[in-house]
Amino acid sequence: MSEFDVIEKVFAPLAGDGAFGLKDDAALLPPYVLSKDVLVVGVHFLPSDPPDLVARKALRVNLSDLIAKGCQPQAYLLGCVWRSDTPTEAIQRFGEGLAHDQARFGLALLGGDTTSGPLNVISVTIIGVPINQQPVLRSGARPGDKVLVTGTIGDGFLGLEAAREDRLADPAIVRSYQLPAIPWGAQEATARYATAALDVSDGLVADAEHLAQASGVDLHLWAERFPLSGHGEAAREAGRLAELITRGDDYQVLLTVPPHKEHKFQAALPADVTATPIGEVVASDGRGTVIVHDENGSPVKFDRQGWDHFKD
Amino acid sequence: MSEFDVIEKVFAPLAGDGAFGLKDDAALLPPYVLSKDVLVVGVHFLPSDPPDLVARKALRVNLSDLIAKGCQPQAYLLGCVWRSDTPTEAIQRFGEGLAHDQARFGLALLGGDTTSGPLNVISVTIIGVPINQQPVLRSGARPGDKVLVTGTIGDGFLGLEAAREDRLADPAIVRSYQLPAIPWGAQEATARYATAALDVSDGLVADAEHLAQASGVDLHLWAERFPLSGHGEAAREAGRLAELITRGDDYQVLLTVPPHKEHKFQAALPADVTATPIGEVVASDGRGTVIVHDENGSPVKFDRQGWDHFKD
Repeated sequence: MSEFDVIEKVFAPLAGDGAFGLKDDAALLPPYVLSKDVLVVGVHFLPSDPPDLVARKALRVNLSDLIAKGCQPQAYLLGCVWRSDTPTEAIQRFGEGLAHDQARFGLALLGGDTTSGPLNVISVTIIGVPINQQPVLRSGARPGDKVLVTGTIGDGFLGLEAAREDRLADPAIVRSYQLPAIPWGAQEATARYATAALDVSDGLVADAEHLAQASGVDLHLWAERFPLSGHGEAAREAGRLAELITRGDDYQVLLTVPPHKEHKFQAALPADVTATPIGEVVASDGRGTVIVHDENGSPVKFDRQGWDHFKD
Repeated sequence: MSEFDVIEKVFAPLAGDGAFGLKDDAALLPPYVLSKDVLVVGVHFLPSDPPDLVARKALRVNLSDLIAKGCQPQAYLLGCVWRSDTPTEAIQRFGEGLAHDQARFGLALLGGDTTSGPLNVISVTIIGVPINQQPVLRSGARPGDKVLVTGTIGDGFLGLEAAREDRLADPAIVRSYQLPAIPWGAQEATARYATAALDVSDGLVADAEHLAQASGVDLHLWAERFPLSGHGEAAREAGRLAELITRGDDYQVLLTVPPHKEHKFQAALPADVTATPIGEVVASDGRGTVIVHDENGSPVKFDRQGWDHFKD
């Protein structure tokens, strides 16, 4: 079974009120919204990553969920498994990273668990409150809505590749993998104007498909509009666009807004957060598919839609 | 640094309101109480343990925290790391175990995260509500209070030993390690009458010390009163009492009650839950120590006070 099959077949039947059938990235426990992400060494971060950045990434991959749900983050619980040979200094630097991003994002540590084991695992449960009464779900996109994505796409993947291959990589691109530049502040505009949203963690195409399926709509995306950094543009020119939009680790927000609200949405974003229109929502025959068009309007084909933790 | 040093020096300075300085097993986020425990294969369960029992144990080690805090459990979030070669059937059986204990204890699955990695890790964040307005903390014990512990002590350790050594062990004792018999229903009596409480996960002596230190009192415990099963009695006769009370994995509740309320506390327990008086709270010089007396009244010495995840 794939990761998504496991969730749908094994865990979704166990879900209670507020769980949204486990089809969203967050749960509602009034007045709070909760989200939980687990990071495993070698999967979500590398053993060589600086411990303070691992800590900040662990917070940020959870923060991006709450931003996408239009929630103001408030507190978190932290579960850590440390390899028994982890130096004290590494744990201290991990704590410094937490302190840094706690201050930056107004978070408080509420509790958790610390244990030792054969390898390092970080589990964060983050808690926030909806800015506009209810969290923004994946399921509210309507035909005619515009599709936007914050920041740039593909840098996390390029940064991971650079870090793994240990070549003389540009530190800036490695950094965008180690410390995702989440669209902080976009939670306000998302809460007010988005009809549907989720964070891009599995890959732009895969997460667009999650949104399309939950909303019962199709998404038409235009590849030439995808926001790319300089490194991303270079990779696109090298024919690697498919990797940029299917490999995940972006932690940006993909969202839909009614066309007449796009201007207000943009105006409500902080000055340092960009959101790029990349496509439209159209009526579906029911399955919820995503079609990426190239510069000629032809559909692009992919070997894989995104990152699936059970297949990769 | 030990596990407790790490919590005190690195994480406690990061704690916010409701975290009780990370000195308790639960956090207060009104109107909820949250607790989080992480289980790692090879540390908290064995690769050979039946997956449905691993699931139920993951819930129970969290439930015991809420019972000790006098809270009614309500829901949980689940983070799983699965080894990529985990058979589908094992994950399905894990789901069956969750379903079983969800029904038994009135829990709903709220959300979580599923990922793959080099080994199996289960992280549960459990959420409940205080039965008597506030959670019962470690810090409320007062001189003159009686010290009680639910159930029996040491069976988890004996069961782990039996399971590890793979000999022709009594299945009942292996089971008490795989599936802790938590004192379900004791949350009501604990909420109403206990001055302090915590669950016994690190070992009776170590957890008694946690309570003593948090309350600023000393505890005098009487070894001959410790509640033991038949297997526990046999181990005590073989001179292994120290192991029974220092190795942990009990998931019973250690609590203090004023002497005049002990009768009411006992009367409020469900018929199938026992609580045994094992000692008294006395005034401390400030450090908070635990003295275990043998049958002659002499203090017993231990090599170790309990299970410390960073030293073992």
